[in-house]
Amino acid sequence: MSNDTKPSTYAVDARDDVLGRARVIDNDELLSFYKELEAHSANAFWRRANEIEPWEPETRYSPTIWRYKEMRPLVVKSSELVKPEEAGRRVIVLVNDSDPGRQNSAAVGWLFSGLQIMLPGEITPAHRHTASAQRFIMEGGGAYTVVDGHQIELGQYDYVLTPGKCWHDHGVFDHGQVSIWQDGLDIPLMNSLETNFYEVYPENIQKPAFTTNDLPLVYGNAGLLPNTGQTWDKPYSPMMIYRWKETQDALFNLAKCEPGSPYDGQIVKFSNPLTGGWAMQTMGAQMQMLAPGQHCKAHRHTGNVMYNCAGGEGYSVIGGKRFDWQEHDIFCVPSWVWHEHVNLSSSEQAFLFTFNDFPVMQALGVFIEEALQTNNGHQALKP
Amino acid sequence: MSNDTKPSTYAVDARDDVLGRARVIDNDELLSFYKELEAHSANAFWRRANEIEPWEPETRYSPTIWRYKEMRPLVVKSSELVKPEEAGRRVIVLVNDSDPGRQNSAAVGWLFSGLQIMLPGEITPAHRHTASAQRFIMEGGGAYTVVDGHQIELGQYDYVLTPGKCWHDHGVFDHGQVSIWQDGLDIPLMNSLETNFYEVYPENIQKPAFTTNDLPLVYGNAGLLPNTGQTWDKPYSPMMIYRWKETQDALFNLAKCEPGSPYDGQIVKFSNPLTGGWAMQTMGAQMQMLAPGQHCKAHRHTGNVMYNCAGGEGYSVIGGKRFDWQEHDIFCVPSWVWHEHVNLSSSEQAFLFTFNDFPVMQALGVFIEEALQTNNGHQALKP
Amino acid sequence: MSNDTKPSTYAVDARDDVLGRARVIDNDELLSFYKELEAHSANAFWRRANEIEPWEPETRYSPTIWRYKEMRPLVVKSSELVKPEEAGRRVIVLVNDSDPGRQNSAAVGWLFSGLQIMLPGEITPAHRHTASAQRFIMEGGGAYTVVDGHQIELGQYDYVLTPGKCWHDHGVFDHGQVSIWQDGLDIPLMNSLETNFYEVYPENIQKPAFTTNDLPLVYGNAGLLPNTGQTWDKPYSPMMIYRWKETQDALFNLAKCEPGSPYDGQIVKFSNPLTGGWAMQTMGAQMQMLAPGQHCKAHRHTGNVMYNCAGGEGYSVIGGKRFDWQEHDIFCVPSWVWHEHVNLSSSEQAFLFTFNDFPVMQALGVFIEEALQTNNGHQALKP
Amino acid sequence: MSNDTKPSTYAVDARDDVLGRARVIDNDELLSFYKELEAHSANAFWRRANEIEPWEPETRYSPTIWRYKEMRPLVVKSSELVKPEEAGRRVIVLVNDSDPGRQNSAAVGWLFSGLQIMLPGEITPAHRHTASAQRFIMEGGGAYTVVDGHQIELGQYDYVLTPGKCWHDHGVFDHGQVSIWQDGLDIPLMNSLETNFYEVYPENIQKPAFTTNDLPLVYGNAGLLPNTGQTWDKPYSPMMIYRWKETQDALFNLAKCEPGSPYDGQIVKFSNPLTGGWAMQTMGAQMQMLAPGQHCKAHRHTGNVMYNCAGGEGYSVIGGKRFDWQEHDIFCVPSWVWHEHVNLSSSEQAFLFTFNDFPVMQALGVFIEEALQTNNGHQALKP
Repeated sequence: MSNDTKPSTYAVDARDDVLGRARVIDNDELLSFYKELEAHSANAFWRRANEIEPWEPETRYSPTIWRYKEMRPLVVKSSELVKPEEAGRRVIVLVNDSDPGRQNSAAVGWLFSGLQIMLPGEITPAHRHTASAQRFIMEGGGAYTVVDGHQIELGQYDYVLTPGKCWHDHGVFDHGQVSIWQDGLDIPLMNSLETNFYEVYPENIQKPAFTTNDLPLVYGNAGLLPNTGQTWDKPYSPMMIYRWKETQDALFNLAKCEPGSPYDGQIVKFSNPLTGGWAMQTMGAQMQMLAPGQHCKAHRHTGNVMYNCAGGEGYSVIGGKRFDWQEHDIFCVPSWVWHEHVNLSSSEQAFLFTFNDFPVMQALGVFIEEALQTNNGHQALKP
Repeated sequence: MSNDTKPSTYAVDARDDVLGRARVIDNDELLSFYKELEAHSANAFWRRANEIEPWEPETRYSPTIWRYKEMRPLVVKSSELVKPEEAGRRVIVLVNDSDPGRQNSAAVGWLFSGLQIMLPGEITPAHRHTASAQRFIMEGGGAYTVVDGHQIELGQYDYVLTPGKCWHDHGVFDHGQVSIWQDGLDIPLMNSLETNFYEVYPENIQKPAFTTNDLPLVYGNAGLLPNTGQTWDKPYSPMMIYRWKETQDALFNLAKCEPGSPYDGQIVKFSNPLTGGWAMQTMGAQMQMLAPGQHCKAHRHTGNVMYNCAGGEGYSVIGGKRFDWQEHDIFCVPSWVWHEHVNLSSSEQAFLFTFNDFPVMQALGVFIEEALQTNNGHQALKP
Repeated sequence: MSNDTKPSTYAVDARDDVLGRARVIDNDELLSFYKELEAHSANAFWRRANEIEPWEPETRYSPTIWRYKEMRPLVVKSSELVKPEEAGRRVIVLVNDSDPGRQNSAAVGWLFSGLQIMLPGEITPAHRHTASAQRFIMEGGGAYTVVDGHQIELGQYDYVLTPGKCWHDHGVFDHGQVSIWQDGLDIPLMNSLETNFYEVYPENIQKPAFTTNDLPLVYGNAGLLPNTGQTWDKPYSPMMIYRWKETQDALFNLAKCEPGSPYDGQIVKFSNPLTGGWAMQTMGAQMQMLAPGQHCKAHRHTGNVMYNCAGGEGYSVIGGKRFDWQEHDIFCVPSWVWHEHVNLSSSEQAFLFTFNDFPVMQALGVFIEEALQTNNGHQALKP
Repeated sequence: MSNDTKPSTYAVDARDDVLGRARVIDNDELLSFYKELEAHSANAFWRRANEIEPWEPETRYSPTIWRYKEMRPLVVKSSELVKPEEAGRRVIVLVNDSDPGRQNSAAVGWLFSGLQIMLPGEITPAHRHTASAQRFIMEGGGAYTVVDGHQIELGQYDYVLTPGKCWHDHGVFDHGQVSIWQDGLDIPLMNSLETNFYEVYPENIQKPAFTTNDLPLVYGNAGLLPNTGQTWDKPYSPMMIYRWKETQDALFNLAKCEPGSPYDGQIVKFSNPLTGGWAMQTMGAQMQMLAPGQHCKAHRHTGNVMYNCAGGEGYSVIGGKRFDWQEHDIFCVPSWVWHEHVNLSSSEQAFLFTFNDFPVMQALGVFIEEALQTNNGHQALKP
């Protein structure tokens, strides 16, 4: 198979006819030379240079929205059709409406996401993997997770970690309610890096080895770290869960003191209190609050983001297209696509939970951001 | 003046008669040689070697206690005798009962401490210095500090920072109450390092430039850092104040989860949420809680500690001597002196606020700690 | 297009019939449910779970060798067929003999590599990109590169950086010789991350703005950093070039002192003297030396490696297959594939230059390594 | 003893009669109050405030010079009068010509320094201490040190480390020559911090456990770190010695590329190749080179510096006073004292080795520097 029969997946630009870009005109001698190269596991750089060195990133992923009123019945139906112990995890995967999305089960970019439903009394078998996971609780009560023996109770709009390589299982207590949460994992990244390992736990579930909620109790006190002999040398936040009330309070506190970001309104990042960095190495998460009537400005950046509306209603313009959202709706913004957010209510705040792959971009030195300069910072809507 | 007329301030030990220690026997020729050296700004190492290289540190400071029932009347009296604008700051200095303490106004080691009283309507003129300061509020209400334009309200048992080089002033609002707090500064360290600079502010006081309490509102949310465009590149905690309720809650949370330190009971350090380190570069602070009836074990370490009882009653054995304390009493533990704490109440917790120079010891690689191995970890009381 | 028509690219294992893995048996109701999901940009996790969560990584790349005796004539021929200013850069790309290799022009994993030839008097136009580049000089003399205005002369077996976002151009002086080097770039990574930007310089080439070789002269002195006012805040090594003589000397020095690695013999990493880390954020490079007759043991690790023999002759067993190599031959080891190296000479050392994506694996916490435990650490050769 | 009978050691300034400084006028009531305070281990802050919070540092140390032509005979004489095994170490201590210098055996500030002489065949018994040491070899050959089992050979103008807590001993081989070196230790700092511990080794000397010079061989290759399995987790440079030839070459390299510092000419710091920081935590060292005829500008900074002329001749103006120096002369610059250096030769470079306590100042955030703005940056000479 010839290298050049594969259609280009990157943009080729009229600007390419300049010094510093490839602009070789093929002839018979060259075409013959190319065949010789291909026979030696080689190719001529200039044949693909402009494609593999684009002027700027052009994402292969599409802005996609998953409306909860459509997704919830499907998620509930899954709980009637399969058992978690047969499914591994009973998750409905959110698949980006693009070729690479379908290929690697990505919601957008390096991010996998799904909706998981657990019924009272159900458990998911314990296991671990190199991929990191996080959950954002959308509905229910009486759910829990156990991470490396630490049991943590989950409430609505809590954000909880399952860092890579940790044993974990989860479930809903018998007295609990039907619970639905959004999972976020870096599975596409781990597979692309060819670093994904998986193990099942020797027992069906872990026996909790500590006081329930010990990690957030011990490490979740603002500016107050335990000094009773603990050493935490793991590369992720020891808090493990960030609760909705504290998160919402933090946003209200911010709003008392400052105008907020022009692109995101008031926004806090879930951070590791031992380092000030993101809570995990490969995925970050944030919660943002738009003031009543707020219309943010547009910007774009490298890195991918999944949004989940945690209250309120509004819309986002992504790549020039409007996506309306309300509570529980989920949507994505791919790399280097313009986006801006609007709160449609004139009286209520709107909340957007997000998770992203920014820690990867930052660790590798390629987080790049740009504000829209034209039209007072707002995109023109595409027809 | 001969070098050797100065009495040694370090211990000389019978163990010195071994290979590896100085044990030169003086004779006339040597004495003559020493005079020659002194005439050339020199000395023979072996004359002072065992003194300047002791087997272990022998502190020049004494364990000292300042009982509040004695100190409070003196502090109140100071408010009748001088005005803060005449005194610079109206502070009663706690002076270690030792020669170096009196010489450099140290409470213990590198730590300066004093009791400051402010009456309603009083202010202290704005100024700044290389030395860092911190305050622990003991009595009162309606007090505030302004640090680099950020105004912060002070409540009982709050711990508040005034990092080195920041402009600061403080006062009590007209409607407030008589307020007394403990100051802690690294003045002895800054003077010994010959790095202390001082400036008075162009105005009497700073005009607050931000929402009151903005720094703790913005940075004091557990694991939730603002991401609206702030960058904090200063070498100290942006939280600036740690409030008593949150501190006490953190200790109760810890107590639910773990046994605590054998030496300190439950203990939290006031930390910088951006780094996980101490809140300032040269002084640290902690709050500890002893369970009813708890008798901690003895240990010793390099570094100096000032204690302030924030509730309860008990005693500490320091260097084999018992010091009884109750609320507001202040005492110190010098470097490398054995100490253990006891809560005398069988029903109530006891709380000890401490500040220390551990950040210095740790930054320079000389924080060294040892547990008492004998007598089940308890000191014998000296007669 | 249905999600499940795409053939799996990951291994599915007989071990999957256990609790903790997906093992749902499809039926008509489920198949109908799957169609409904696909219509909503969704899928059932358990349909792809075992595939996207493999037990361990199974690389999509093949061990490949590019023998210089075959590649050199092709490289020389390229210099007769195209001009560098038409080609952008006149590079023969080394393409992994696998489907993803051909698709993204990767030599292995995230690594792009090619052979570039420059004739005396030729230049390559100045440009920059987010992707980082490095060069290993294989033949020639009188070549140079200019990186952000710093001109650096290139000698045989020198290793030189072109970090991402730096302006760069290169050429051979009129009095120089035909020069051939191996390029290594992280183009596949940058494209997968959707972060690749490209710009051409306003002029054809940069005018050198500093003393020739100033960066290695100023920063390339072991343990001796300039303190004349420089601040280097860039995330890559200021040395910029690592010369062959110093590299070889370092290996000889190591050999005097210690036995070396069981897998790599004596090996040094090209590091940033300001941090002790890799010279760049996304790619690392090393030089290793095998003693005469040395037969190293086998190990495997995540991350990808390109090898270039810088002297001597031997072979490597990669994934159970033997690859013989001699000077200038290039080969690759993909992620998690067993490999071991052998020096076939009984009198001469063998040298292997390598570059890798380990900095990515380490920054993301997924560098995992394993030694072969069976057969005294040696692989069985596959027929 | 009353607190106020101690004469102030800090400056009191006429500028003190301003708001923000202490300016209480004593009266009988106050004097009586002061006595009451003193009886309670207390004092009034305003009595000492201006003294302990000076406007700027005023050093207690004097610029001092130790001329080698005077010191060398004394050092040689010490070798005739005592044996190293009796003296512990046979060192002539350089004592600052000031009260605190004599009191704590400091050469300047926190720095101890001495001249040590070793005759062929002599050894110094093995020991260790919390204090860190460093040596600068002035004369001789065939000397060595053993640090934690690593034997290192010492040549003229080499700079060698003995970090705190490391076992060490040293000597001169039987075939070697009389050797003299300058010792630099942080003994005054360790004693002031009350953290100094001392131990003698179980044997007279350590038996070398590694290849001679293994640490500089393994870690002293510019930008080339070993990757054969070593982990170096100690807080000091693994290079351990910095050799004169490499140091001199580095300065010549710098001189080819840039103008150098206006205050120090060409200057390199001895650094830890794993961190880019100083080689040890509490003391730093540098080598500087003044071009023929160079007259540097004046600056001042916190921190203390010891100079040792490693070639050439010139003078320094320190605090307005001229100090002429030639090879082997040693002098000091105390904290916050203006200083500038002049090379008196019109044809030869002058070299100044220095060691300092800058790492302490920087770790604690109090390294402060100022350029002289008047008189074109040159001090007026005091009569």
